[in-house]
Amino acid sequence: MTAYDRLATRFARIATVNEAISMLNWDASVMMPPGGAAARGEQLAVLSGLSHELATASALADDLTEAELSPPADPWAAGNLALMRHRQQQAAALPADLVEAQSRANSACESVWRGARQTSDFAAVRPYLAEVVRLTREASMALGEAFGLTPYDALMDLYQRGIGAADVEPIFTAYEGFLADALPLAEAIQAGRGIPTPLPGPFPIPTQEALCRRLSESAGLDYRHARLDTSAHPFSGGTPTDNRITSRYTEDECFQSLMGVMHETGHAMYEAGLPRAYARQPVGEAAGMAAHESQSLLIELQVCRSDAYLSWLGPQLAASFGGDPSLYATGNLGGLLRRVDRGFIRVEANEVTYPAHVILRFRLERALMAGDLSVDDLPGAWNEGMQSLLGITPPDDRRGCLQDIHWYDGAFGYFPSYTLGAMAAAQIMAAIRRAVPDVDEAMSKGDLSPLLGWVRREIHGRANSLGFNDLMVAATGKPLESADFTAHLTARYLTA
Amino acid sequence: MTAYDRLATRFARIATVNEAISMLNWDASVMMPPGGAAARGEQLAVLSGLSHELATASALADDLTEAELSPPADPWAAGNLALMRHRQQQAAALPADLVEAQSRANSACESVWRGARQTSDFAAVRPYLAEVVRLTREASMALGEAFGLTPYDALMDLYQRGIGAADVEPIFTAYEGFLADALPLAEAIQAGRGIPTPLPGPFPIPTQEALCRRLSESAGLDYRHARLDTSAHPFSGGTPTDNRITSRYTEDECFQSLMGVMHETGHAMYEAGLPRAYARQPVGEAAGMAAHESQSLLIELQVCRSDAYLSWLGPQLAASFGGDPSLYATGNLGGLLRRVDRGFIRVEANEVTYPAHVILRFRLERALMAGDLSVDDLPGAWNEGMQSLLGITPPDDRRGCLQDIHWYDGAFGYFPSYTLGAMAAAQIMAAIRRAVPDVDEAMSKGDLSPLLGWVRREIHGRANSLGFNDLMVAATGKPLESADFTAHLTARYLTA
Repeated sequence: MTAYDRLATRFARIATVNEAISMLNWDASVMMPPGGAAARGEQLAVLSGLSHELATASALADDLTEAELSPPADPWAAGNLALMRHRQQQAAALPADLVEAQSRANSACESVWRGARQTSDFAAVRPYLAEVVRLTREASMALGEAFGLTPYDALMDLYQRGIGAADVEPIFTAYEGFLADALPLAEAIQAGRGIPTPLPGPFPIPTQEALCRRLSESAGLDYRHARLDTSAHPFSGGTPTDNRITSRYTEDECFQSLMGVMHETGHAMYEAGLPRAYARQPVGEAAGMAAHESQSLLIELQVCRSDAYLSWLGPQLAASFGGDPSLYATGNLGGLLRRVDRGFIRVEANEVTYPAHVILRFRLERALMAGDLSVDDLPGAWNEGMQSLLGITPPDDRRGCLQDIHWYDGAFGYFPSYTLGAMAAAQIMAAIRRAVPDVDEAMSKGDLSPLLGWVRREIHGRANSLGFNDLMVAATGKPLESADFTAHLTARYLTA
Repeated sequence: MTAYDRLATRFARIATVNEAISMLNWDASVMMPPGGAAARGEQLAVLSGLSHELATASALADDLTEAELSPPADPWAAGNLALMRHRQQQAAALPADLVEAQSRANSACESVWRGARQTSDFAAVRPYLAEVVRLTREASMALGEAFGLTPYDALMDLYQRGIGAADVEPIFTAYEGFLADALPLAEAIQAGRGIPTPLPGPFPIPTQEALCRRLSESAGLDYRHARLDTSAHPFSGGTPTDNRITSRYTEDECFQSLMGVMHETGHAMYEAGLPRAYARQPVGEAAGMAAHESQSLLIELQVCRSDAYLSWLGPQLAASFGGDPSLYATGNLGGLLRRVDRGFIRVEANEVTYPAHVILRFRLERALMAGDLSVDDLPGAWNEGMQSLLGITPPDDRRGCLQDIHWYDGAFGYFPSYTLGAMAAAQIMAAIRRAVPDVDEAMSKGDLSPLLGWVRREIHGRANSLGFNDLMVAATGKPLESADFTAHLTARYLTA
């Protein structure tokens, strides 16, 4: 066995432990009775610790050194080896006790946050968040030192390799400028169009569940390898051959669940589409969280909110929920699903204002990590930021700094991925329209297979063999730019 | 930190990995889509391998040697140390590659068995079972050598420490003699009583589920720390603070699910009743599988099929399923729930013939492990054994050697625990009646708290601090005997 083959075995083992962690996280959010939380926290901490131990084993480091002396000729294998080194350096930068302490602190904080969010009680979770921030900063400094990055860039690198604050800052600043004009313009155009009529309902939850399942299946999700469940906070988890997606339901309306499920379906199909030949290898994973969001938002925003898809979706909705057929016309559905407003909640935001939510979080988490903002001052800073970006002030922390799970679960540096993903999705959709001219016609029949064929080949099939921008170049002909995104917004929202 | 304290930390870590394994096994049986099976097999194999690696670490062995030089004075800690040594010897006897190979072979065989059982196709699963038998024999020989036990006794020791074939053989032989007279007598007495009238139904599954949950809750299961789900093969899994029990339902009748849930509730309450101070330590675990079955069968057989409990259960059933109230009278329910017949299926057997099912499996698995019986010859040997013990021959392997999951999942040496548990349950019930004279009166009001108080103190609270027979002595005043069991059967089935 060559050193490279031994490494492949070692990394497969690490990935398999991480699969177990992913499944236990899914269970914790979807199935676990509340009394199981403490034990689950320990299980996750111990498995995280073992995963870290495997990655920092001296025998693995020796194999890396040996393999690098005669790197494999095959480009995927060579890329895999480089990623293995990157992973090993990341792990080696972090002491084992810090990794387990982070896992425990994140579990404890997330668990308290669930209650604190409901009662809008930031004070209850503040000490837990302070501990999470303290440990994350410690980790970020260690990682930053190891890679010659700023601490915050080192965290960003964990979620989207190779992308740092300097990459996103000009994009965000430009978007803030765009938004200053675009938002009032979109609102004015929208006002001129009149108010769309809400679907009358009722929206029984079993009917929504059945429709969600059918739509995700017709989009390409294979339920022999997937489950759809309910959780307080929708997410996509599991493994490439066992996708676990979740949604939440309210009887008041149906779009939250439908669009949420289609979003998670995009994530799940990415995982399912990764090449099996490199399963459990670093090069065989998804290309990062911005790439991942590009796939979920491609389905949710580019496809499902397009006129073409809505013209097919309307009759499906009508068959499920009944009532006046004219309400299911594309024009009315588009009015409902592409409504621009200024809201407090990121996950309910429209695609015009969504980047503002991300910009706020990016700035605040960067300040938290730099030590320029204390956890005590977070609620105030949040509210000021919302006022400055969208001209609104959250009435309470539930609709402010308590709304997202990320920080309370130790995820700092993740938020920019959402907006990079939204921009990438627009760029990918533009490329698909060039390559597959009849893609909209297929979408208007509910047929996503031409689109899925393209992303399977151009995105999913390339897995993590390229960096994010190289992947965008290979797939779309250019690195990530905001031009296709703003063109998309202009066509959809800024054209009377 | 003393060597003993370091060991406590090490064993807590091992137990925590095993908790993760338990949860992933639960998920595989209850939630996982079929396409996830291969990846799950890998996850379980890797975690089993890691658990084994932790238990065989040379630093752990060094800590054991050091701690044994000055063992702790506290009897629980001293018992814990002895159990740690026992675990370490078990682990050290098995090479790591064998442990992972067993985990993989068991997962693969179990997965094939699920289909083979449905189609009664022994040939389909035969090569997988042969591989499981081969690996289990290899493990049994290694364990036997390490402990100076026969290979089969070494397997039995894995499930009920300190109990071997020589302990159960005379009990089983005596029972076979008892049964030869008792079964015809019970059948004759039953015939004289006339045929009970089946409940008319219908038995909607949601109604059954709700009743199962309510009955298990009123028996003492705390759903803040538990879940009840559906699976093809009912079981109790999870961890002491996160019990996962399952049942299966048919619309044809309600007793299978109700009694099944009460059985699993007995298991779950044992886990929940273990002392938290020794959580994740060998001494803090349940005292073995015979002890575990004593707790499930105490609830299912001793309590739930007693006249006292049935007099309370009748009105609960009537409220759920309606119809002629006289059918819910204790006499009729007892006739339905205590029916003696000669059937092919172990899990459907009554308590008179159940030991015969176990005796058959005990003899066959012993012969398989000794190499005296080949997997090819298993179906025939099974059918001959059933003919000899109960005078019936299964019409197909689905109702013969394919019916139980155990062997196909690598569990050899487990079956005797069922009958030891049934006997222990009778002995425990007799002790409870002596200690708590009004226990039947409470049961007739649906109140199991006096009984539960006794078992929490006398059984659950002692955890694994005593061997099985010492536990029986401490709790009931004598080691396990069959006298209380045959007295119970005589009173219930052999008295006109």
